[in-house]
Amino acid sequence: MQPANAYAAQCPTRLVLDRVADKWTVLVLGLLAEGPLRFNELRRRVEGVSQKMLSQTLKGLERDGLVTRRAYATVPVTVEYRATPLGHTLSATLDPLRIWAETYIAEVQAAQRRYDAVA
Amino acid sequence: MQPANAYAAQCPTRLVLDRVADKWTVLVLGLLAEGPLRFNELRRRVEGVSQKMLSQTLKGLERDGLVTRRAYATVPVTVEYRATPLGHTLSATLDPLRIWAETYIAEVQAAQRRYDAVA
Repeated sequence: MQPANAYAAQCPTRLVLDRVADKWTVLVLGLLAEGPLRFNELRRRVEGVSQKMLSQTLKGLERDGLVTRRAYATVPVTVEYRATPLGHTLSATLDPLRIWAETYIAEVQAAQRRYDAVA
Repeated sequence: MQPANAYAAQCPTRLVLDRVADKWTVLVLGLLAEGPLRFNELRRRVEGVSQKMLSQTLKGLERDGLVTRRAYATVPVTVEYRATPLGHTLSATLDPLRIWAETYIAEVQAAQRRYDAVA
């Protein structure tokens, strides 16, 4: 087996990178790393995410082994999501990305204004 | 001004996160952090990237102040890309993500097989 190399077009790493390098994954996994949450709590805290997008994101995370889903037989049914140990390792690498965006947003916006003024 | 918060739908951080949490950004900036490269070298090393996608990615990175583009008056014109200091700070947060994907690809694929077997 070839060593994993994200620069190789045929390496499956490329597919995983495509899934995890994603805005919603960053935000959802960032919350779940702090503790389990129900679907509706997640939806409320990740402002602006649609029900469909959140469902898709969670299903992808579950399939990749990053999140577990547990349904409780309440009325109505309660569904709780929780980061797996693997999900915690990913979250630890994604948190710095979110923090980078929050830290350098002003610099990025200034660069965009300069670029747009010339273009 | 509100402090930057990627969880707030109206925070501009959300837009930046959408741009930088991207497979091609991870791969392109990962290479440029090592040193300047020409367009065609980038295209060759990021296997499978289309000319259009690479152009779009580089233009976005340039607009965000993460990469500079310099054209040399050779025949044909040589265009070289280089990470800015801001780009280097982002690359330092993205590299662990690429390494995570390369490290845990087997675990992710095993989880996918388990998920698909049940679904």
